[in-house]
Amino acid sequence: MLAALKERVYKMNLMLPKNNLVTMTSGNVSGRDIKTGYVVIKPSGVLYEEMKPEDMVVVDLNGNIIEGKLRPSVDTPTHLYVYRHRQDVNGIVHTHSPYATSFAALGKSIPVYLTAIADEFGGPIPVGPYAQIGGEEIGKAIVEHIGDSPAILMKHHGVFAIGKTPESAVKAAVMVEDVAQTVYLALTLGQPEELPPAEVKRAHERYMTAYGQGA
Amino acid sequence: MLAALKERVYKMNLMLPKNNLVTMTSGNVSGRDIKTGYVVIKPSGVLYEEMKPEDMVVVDLNGNIIEGKLRPSVDTPTHLYVYRHRQDVNGIVHTHSPYATSFAALGKSIPVYLTAIADEFGGPIPVGPYAQIGGEEIGKAIVEHIGDSPAILMKHHGVFAIGKTPESAVKAAVMVEDVAQTVYLALTLGQPEELPPAEVKRAHERYMTAYGQGA
Amino acid sequence: MLAALKERVYKMNLMLPKNNLVTMTSGNVSGRDIKTGYVVIKPSGVLYEEMKPEDMVVVDLNGNIIEGKLRPSVDTPTHLYVYRHRQDVNGIVHTHSPYATSFAALGKSIPVYLTAIADEFGGPIPVGPYAQIGGEEIGKAIVEHIGDSPAILMKHHGVFAIGKTPESAVKAAVMVEDVAQTVYLALTLGQPEELPPAEVKRAHERYMTAYGQGA
Amino acid sequence: MLAALKERVYKMNLMLPKNNLVTMTSGNVSGRDIKTGYVVIKPSGVLYEEMKPEDMVVVDLNGNIIEGKLRPSVDTPTHLYVYRHRQDVNGIVHTHSPYATSFAALGKSIPVYLTAIADEFGGPIPVGPYAQIGGEEIGKAIVEHIGDSPAILMKHHGVFAIGKTPESAVKAAVMVEDVAQTVYLALTLGQPEELPPAEVKRAHERYMTAYGQGA
Repeated sequence: MLAALKERVYKMNLMLPKNNLVTMTSGNVSGRDIKTGYVVIKPSGVLYEEMKPEDMVVVDLNGNIIEGKLRPSVDTPTHLYVYRHRQDVNGIVHTHSPYATSFAALGKSIPVYLTAIADEFGGPIPVGPYAQIGGEEIGKAIVEHIGDSPAILMKHHGVFAIGKTPESAVKAAVMVEDVAQTVYLALTLGQPEELPPAEVKRAHERYMTAYGQGA
Repeated sequence: MLAALKERVYKMNLMLPKNNLVTMTSGNVSGRDIKTGYVVIKPSGVLYEEMKPEDMVVVDLNGNIIEGKLRPSVDTPTHLYVYRHRQDVNGIVHTHSPYATSFAALGKSIPVYLTAIADEFGGPIPVGPYAQIGGEEIGKAIVEHIGDSPAILMKHHGVFAIGKTPESAVKAAVMVEDVAQTVYLALTLGQPEELPPAEVKRAHERYMTAYGQGA
Repeated sequence: MLAALKERVYKMNLMLPKNNLVTMTSGNVSGRDIKTGYVVIKPSGVLYEEMKPEDMVVVDLNGNIIEGKLRPSVDTPTHLYVYRHRQDVNGIVHTHSPYATSFAALGKSIPVYLTAIADEFGGPIPVGPYAQIGGEEIGKAIVEHIGDSPAILMKHHGVFAIGKTPESAVKAAVMVEDVAQTVYLALTLGQPEELPPAEVKRAHERYMTAYGQGA
Repeated sequence: MLAALKERVYKMNLMLPKNNLVTMTSGNVSGRDIKTGYVVIKPSGVLYEEMKPEDMVVVDLNGNIIEGKLRPSVDTPTHLYVYRHRQDVNGIVHTHSPYATSFAALGKSIPVYLTAIADEFGGPIPVGPYAQIGGEEIGKAIVEHIGDSPAILMKHHGVFAIGKTPESAVKAAVMVEDVAQTVYLALTLGQPEELPPAEVKRAHERYMTAYGQGA
């Protein structure tokens, strides 16, 4: 069932090692099927290079396994909480990518020092509090603190990115690490100034309409 | 039309991910055809690994699309402004490569601490002011501040590199990141001294004549 | 003899360059055969890309060569000391991976600033004193200071990781470098807080039972 | 002529991009043929991926081109000066590898903070003064300051490594960057202590005799 979505979620999971966002079995991507409401997610603790599309696990929004021979990611309750509370979200990514996670370790958000941050995120990349893995605590903190951003840093932990599709959530996760690296380098070299909020808004709106090949 | 230039511009665009200068769809390379004056440029928001030579867009110097099924890069007005005001430039590259962009974030130029900077750039790598993406503002700032350098850092934004050909502009973009990394490392470890301007001039002139296989 | 274990130890040695933990011929992995008590280990000073499974050397717990045309790793006495004193250990890895070794250079342990450290290590990653290579000194220091951790940093030297299997020891060696990088970045950006010991214990126990696909 | 040495020097040149020590056309490896005294060296400004074994240039110790359609590296006078003054050296490598070059930018040597430095270098990695590229000045400075080390940092410039063979010079160049990275990380995290000279001597002598597979 949901073979096309499994293939997409599988491919998006492989984007994580390809972009150096994960180590060994860490990290995961899920996608929601709009029609059935089911969620397709990476199995727990499986190596990316040994994974196959049919290993993706199908769960319902309450965490019941609908199909799959493997256990789903231990972060499944986090994904499901976000899907239940954000109807606009159909793709979620979790990583411990190192530059972004260094900000998360400190509980620091990433200010808008770069046009790339204004364009992709439309404001600072927010940081949420420490929350325990495995239950609903992280999901609640994400929903409460992420606002309009496509990504959030969770204190002492790592990155969660969301999107209308698994593909756009993965793009946000990749861009978080990219801008986190540049901001890390800038902050260890000097003190950058923030772009003014009105300019961030203008740049973000232009990017959302003018960039790319349109719908 | 312009199939040979499209192939070259396509290949030079692929040099950006190969040299770790870009992330996802960021960055772009263009080339000017000397005979027609037309410019060949990367399409907007297309993944490098999915791009084909025939996807390159042909525009005239006023931004009219001459050929191409895809929208050109949102940075096209910047490229065109530079081509209109610098007859010696037939290749332009834009990246957000992380080390160079960390200097750009701070509005800091890169002094001549290394023989590689003297050889390749002939002086400090300059930095231009913040300018809005999409119109002529960035192009104007580049032309005003780049001087004889083959590359410039734009504040809060990233790198623009220019050359007599797309190939030489790409070489400049690669070398900017290379020397920016080494200078970043040196500056976080201590305070390097600048090479004296007369020695920079001597080294640059020697490099421009003695290095490589000649014309 | 021990062809299956040689194949596994060979494959795990190749995981070291694949995960950027070693340079040239540095680093090594060994595995113990539970039935015979023999240890299979990488030969000394051989390039990873030129190595074959049959090049792995078989030694007994006293260092006598049982089979093999090549000399075993100069770290063999260290591996054997640990195997003789830790019956639960059947795989050992040694690397000079750069981020972890920077903590080792300073004689600094890695505190629990991240959920990934709590999950994988169950406490701070300990550091042992300087000890001479080649004899029993390093083995003694590992056994004395590693406690319940799957990895230890040795002062001025590098990383040793242990596990119930060569595969789990390699996972620990990879994760040490991963968290060392993130903690390095966090410490050069600010001062993270440690997770409270009770929370570390809770997280580690949950991870050891809930994560992955079970036995 | 010298087809076997050309093949070896070609292969060793390719080790530079493979180990991330060079960018675009920077860097070079040469080897001396003991019988004829001729030196085989990389051509100037040629991309590594486009180079072939037969592109290597053969020169005599005075810089006369004996064979080759291409111009030799602009660093050829440096290599030749070293070969003329060090009969024990039959392989030389030059790179601008970033971590090592950040120490060179500052005119800082790399102290023995790590067992890997004691083992491979037998003492601190020395630094030589600023010297102009292209004549004999760099060669003189290398011979004067390198001592018993297989590598030296040249101020404002980069790394030169020497060896009994091109292969051992390349190994030294790779290890310089490896230990420079770890020492950079340690120095930006704290202040490591140096290993005592007597211990460095003991470790180096053991490594030179016990490590590897012997002659």
